[in-house]
Amino acid sequence: MLRPGFTGSPLDRADRLRNDPDAFMTAVSDWRARLLRLDGIDPVLGEDGRLSWGSLAEADEGAELLLLGLIDGRPHFAALDYGMPEGATRSMGIFRTLDLLPPEEASTYAGARSLIDWHLRHRFCAKCGNGDTVIHRAGWGRQCGRCGAEHFPRVDPVVIMLAEHGDKVLVGRQYRYPPGRYSALAGFVEPGESVEEAVARELHEEAGLTVRDVRYVVSQPWPFPSSLMMACMATADEAALTIDTTELEDAFWVDRAGVEAALAGAPGAPFLAPPHYAIAHTLFRWWLEQAA
Amino acid sequence: MLRPGFTGSPLDRADRLRNDPDAFMTAVSDWRARLLRLDGIDPVLGEDGRLSWGSLAEADEGAELLLLGLIDGRPHFAALDYGMPEGATRSMGIFRTLDLLPPEEASTYAGARSLIDWHLRHRFCAKCGNGDTVIHRAGWGRQCGRCGAEHFPRVDPVVIMLAEHGDKVLVGRQYRYPPGRYSALAGFVEPGESVEEAVARELHEEAGLTVRDVRYVVSQPWPFPSSLMMACMATADEAALTIDTTELEDAFWVDRAGVEAALAGAPGAPFLAPPHYAIAHTLFRWWLEQAA
Ligand SMILES: [Zn+2]
Ligand SMILES: [Zn+2]
Repeated sequence: MLRPGFTGSPLDRADRLRNDPDAFMTAVSDWRARLLRLDGIDPVLGEDGRLSWGSLAEADEGAELLLLGLIDGRPHFAALDYGMPEGATRSMGIFRTLDLLPPEEASTYAGARSLIDWHLRHRFCAKCGNGDTVIHRAGWGRQCGRCGAEHFPRVDPVVIMLAEHGDKVLVGRQYRYPPGRYSALAGFVEPGESVEEAVARELHEEAGLTVRDVRYVVSQPWPFPSSLMMACMATADEAALTIDTTELEDAFWVDRAGVEAALAGAPGAPFLAPPHYAIAHTLFRWWLEQAA
Repeated sequence: MLRPGFTGSPLDRADRLRNDPDAFMTAVSDWRARLLRLDGIDPVLGEDGRLSWGSLAEADEGAELLLLGLIDGRPHFAALDYGMPEGATRSMGIFRTLDLLPPEEASTYAGARSLIDWHLRHRFCAKCGNGDTVIHRAGWGRQCGRCGAEHFPRVDPVVIMLAEHGDKVLVGRQYRYPPGRYSALAGFVEPGESVEEAVARELHEEAGLTVRDVRYVVSQPWPFPSSLMMACMATADEAALTIDTTELEDAFWVDRAGVEAALAGAPGAPFLAPPHYAIAHTLFRWWLEQAA
């Protein structure tokens, strides 16, 4: 079974508690309740290299409690403080931390980070402009007191895919990548298209490829700020590339030996692979195993 | 190949035109440009039972033009008028129209409807409350003139799935369904979870099932208001159900003969199947064919 990064959280999201204000208050006053320790919006790791949790008393005065869910029946919260830095002001340390964090811990953190960051960027009602929207559903939504609109945390579906031609796959690099890094191509799914159509469109737009047989492989959440990454394969009958240089700095076809070398971090590998917690890493590994 | 409803639009989304104001103006002044004819937010069908298109001159004064894309090189637009009724005030006629519309036409319409409806509900900046956000990227976003935030049309990922136990699958009915209608269970993917995790969570929350081996099958967009439906299968080792009656009115296991009868609309079928343009219909049909 594939285990992409940011999956496998032990949290029970406890949906039933969200719409029951009494149950929520019981969870808040549970002496066993735990609060996710954060540094700004970044995780604080304990000595065991896992997420660190404190008591609810550690929350700043005026912070709002978001119910992440239950672990072994114990309520787990994150605290939202509107003075927190948005996730977009991304610290450099977060990626070093993610390198160390086990996937199931990263998964719990990802949900908390995306949720907090969404609240920070959605205090106003997009429908009427009201600034007094309030948190409801135990943190999993906001409601406008003026027009009544409910707003729910956003999840943006993204396709990320390897086009396959013969025994090679296409890797590309975005301008913002660290030197040497290449990955699978990716793009947001737009209104009015399917996953399969988005894969074909992105490969056509970014690399000039016409593909067939789009196959979904596996997915992961990605908390920057809140994407759902869906990893896919597609078959290209022609290898000629027309790279959209507004989107990609470069792209090339790489064979199995090249992908193996990249994943192993071997000297002389044709590219620097994405980190283990990125689903492109999982997809490369899956592709190698398919033919092995 | 599976062809779910709302897929197969002939539109080239022409991403390259969106960020090029000159190219956009050229498209607007192209005498061949066409405008989607709408009645409120519902489609107007031509005598051929397809979408109806007029010239840009038919747009109301003050309407904003959204570039849907190109068909055979001709620019195709929809007009946004902030006085339009939101999609939430759903007309009864829309579903009768969708019954008649070929999937590729419904697909073009779905993108336009989701995009228009998103603009109608997002005139204000959720970050700062400013009411003067303006359309940019040829209709595929809004920008806030005060805080600079860019806002993009929302697509909400949804999992819709059949749990399988032996030779039966689980169907359920929501309270708002027409009499007799049952379908696959469904729910929104939340921040911090994968497609596979969302499938397992929803089946556990709504039906009390523990499942394994979640398999993605196919996807479709769903323009009410803007979902991405991802159809999946999952295996349940135990058949006992604990139905969450706040979500579902009823659920039961149905065998192949039952699903066949439902899809055929046979008298005495155990349930009324979802319409052909809903991906649950595609999923039922796929499941029957798998074992055939
Ligand atoms: Zn409002
Ligand atoms: Zn703003």
